[in-house]
Amino acid sequence: MSPVRVVALGGGHGLAATLSALRLLETRITGIVTVADNGGSSGRLREELGILPPGDLRMALSALCGDDEWGRRWADVLQHRFEGDGALHGHAVGNLLIAGIWEILGDPVDGLDLVGQLLGARGRVLPMSAVPLDIEADVHLDDSPDQLTVVRGQAEVATVEGQVVSVRLDPHDPPACPQAVQAVQDADWVVVGPGSWFTSVMPTLLVPQLRRALVETSARRILVLNLQEQPGETEGLSPADHLEVLAAHAPELRLDAVLVDDSMMGDEQVLRSAAARFGASLHTGPVARDEARDQHDPARLATAFASVVGPGIE
Amino acid sequence: MSPVRVVALGGGHGLAATLSALRLLETRITGIVTVADNGGSSGRLREELGILPPGDLRMALSALCGDDEWGRRWADVLQHRFEGDGALHGHAVGNLLIAGIWEILGDPVDGLDLVGQLLGARGRVLPMSAVPLDIEADVHLDDSPDQLTVVRGQAEVATVEGQVVSVRLDPHDPPACPQAVQAVQDADWVVVGPGSWFTSVMPTLLVPQLRRALVETSARRILVLNLQEQPGETEGLSPADHLEVLAAHAPELRLDAVLVDDSMMGDEQVLRSAAARFGASLHTGPVARDEARDQHDPARLATAFASVVGPGIE
Repeated sequence: MSPVRVVALGGGHGLAATLSALRLLETRITGIVTVADNGGSSGRLREELGILPPGDLRMALSALCGDDEWGRRWADVLQHRFEGDGALHGHAVGNLLIAGIWEILGDPVDGLDLVGQLLGARGRVLPMSAVPLDIEADVHLDDSPDQLTVVRGQAEVATVEGQVVSVRLDPHDPPACPQAVQAVQDADWVVVGPGSWFTSVMPTLLVPQLRRALVETSARRILVLNLQEQPGETEGLSPADHLEVLAAHAPELRLDAVLVDDSMMGDEQVLRSAAARFGASLHTGPVARDEARDQHDPARLATAFASVVGPGIE
Repeated sequence: MSPVRVVALGGGHGLAATLSALRLLETRITGIVTVADNGGSSGRLREELGILPPGDLRMALSALCGDDEWGRRWADVLQHRFEGDGALHGHAVGNLLIAGIWEILGDPVDGLDLVGQLLGARGRVLPMSAVPLDIEADVHLDDSPDQLTVVRGQAEVATVEGQVVSVRLDPHDPPACPQAVQAVQDADWVVVGPGSWFTSVMPTLLVPQLRRALVETSARRILVLNLQEQPGETEGLSPADHLEVLAAHAPELRLDAVLVDDSMMGDEQVLRSAAARFGASLHTGPVARDEARDQHDPARLATAFASVVGPGIE
C-alpha cells in the first residue's frame, strides 16, 4: 500500500509544527508555503535578488529534515541566523542556501526540490505561487478604531496595533504554483493551519487556482486551530472567531475536522457549532507542549492526526 | 590494511586538484589550507565576522565531495557565487555555509569537521593556523625594478606587476592548527603544491610548528610543480626556478619526489639537478587536462601519485 498523501498549507512556525508531526507518520508530505513575507532576512533577499521570500520555505524544509543526528544538525544549521552587525546580520543560513540554489537553477520549484534532495528532506516543499506576493489588510487601528485602515506588508500586518478584519493579496489573483495545485488535487488529506491566521494561513486560501483545488479535492480537510492568540494580528480572537475569519475569507470551503487543544475549548458548544458551519466535526486532545503551551508538540499532533484520519496511517 | 594516510597542503585550485586526485585513490585524506586570503568574498567575510578566510577551505571541501550525483551537486552549490550587485554579490554559497557553522560552533576545526560531515566529504579539511594570517612579499616592481618593495596582502601579491622574491607571514610565527601538525606527523605521504607558489604553497612552510612537522615526519614528501607560470606572481619563473624559491623559503626541507608534467620539462638535466638538491627524484608524466593545459587532470594526477608512491595504493 503506498503511503497516504498529505498536503499541509501555511507558513512559519505553525506549518513547521504540522510538518514535524507528519514526519513522524508514514505519509508522503507536501508543504505549501505562503510567500508574502516582506520583513527581516526574507524581505532583504527578496528585494536584493528579486526572489520569493525564502524564510517560510526554509522553515518548512528544516522541519522535514531527518530525525537522525545528521538531519537534526542540518535543521539547526539552516535555522541559524548570522550575528554581528554587517551585511549578513540576521540572514538565516538556509535562506542563503535556497537563494543560491535558485540562482543556479532559475526555477523556484526545481530549486526547492534540489535543496530538499541535498538535505535529505522527508517530503516536498512548494511555494503557493511562483511570484512574490504582498499582503494588504483592512484594520481597525487602536488609534482610529472607527474606521478601516489599509495596512500593507506581511510584517506590518503581523505586528499591527489594532484589529485585523480581512486580508487580500497583491497581486489580487496570482498564478498558483502548478505543482502545488496538483498536490492538493492528488492528496488523501489536507491540513490547514495552525499559524499566523491572517498573514500565513488565510493567504493560502486566496490564490484562486489553489483555492479551487482546496474546495474541489476529494481529500479529507483538517483545520488545526492555534494554541493562543497572537499579539497584534489575532489579539482578542477566540477559536470560534478564528473559524469566523476563515468563513469570511473562504465561505465555500468545507472541512472534515477541526482540531483544537483541550486548553483552548472555551465554550464547547459554540466551537462545535462554528465547526459545523463548515460541515466539520470537532476533535479535541492534548496537542500542546507541556513546557511551552504556545507550541504544538509534534508527537502529540501526530497522534491527533492519526486519530482524526483513522486507519491507513500509523 | 588501513588506507594510506595522505596530507595535501596548499590552497585554491592547486590544492583542489590534488584533493580531487586523491579522492580517486584509496586514501585517508587531510587537506591543510593556507588561510591568508584577504580578497573577494573571503576578505569581506574575514573583515565582517572576524573569521578565518573561508574561500580556500570551501574549495578544498568542494573537491572532497563525493563522486555520485548528490556529491557533485553539493560541490557545484558550494562553489556558486551570488550575482547581482547587492550585499551578497560575489559571496560563494559555501563560504556562507562555513561562516554560519563557525558561528554556531565557535571552533574552526569543529566547524569544518561538521561541514565535511554534512556534505559527506571524503576526507578532512583543516586550516594551517586557527588565526587569520596576512602575507607580505618583497617584490621588484616593474615600475621600480632596482629596489625591493614590500607588498602586503595575498590578493595584492597574487596580482602584483613585478617579480616576487620572497614572502613571509604576519604574524610572523602564528600558532599552527594542532590537528594539522598531528596529521603531518601521522601521514604516510605528504603532497605539497601545485598552486599559487608564493601566496598558497610557500605559506604552508612558514608556520613554524607545521614546518617542523613537515621536516621531521617520516612520511614520503612529494612536490607537485605547476603547469604554467601565473601572470603576476610567478611570471617568468621556470619549474627549476620554482624549486629555487622553495629552497630559499625552506632550505632544510627534504623531498622524495618532484612531479612535473611532460610539457613543463624544459631542460631535463637542469630540473633533475634542482630536484636532487632536495634529495628528490624527478617524476614526469602527462598530468594536465587535454582540453585545459593549465589544469591538472584528477585521474592522470591520481595515476601519477600511484606510480610515485608505488604499492599500497590503488
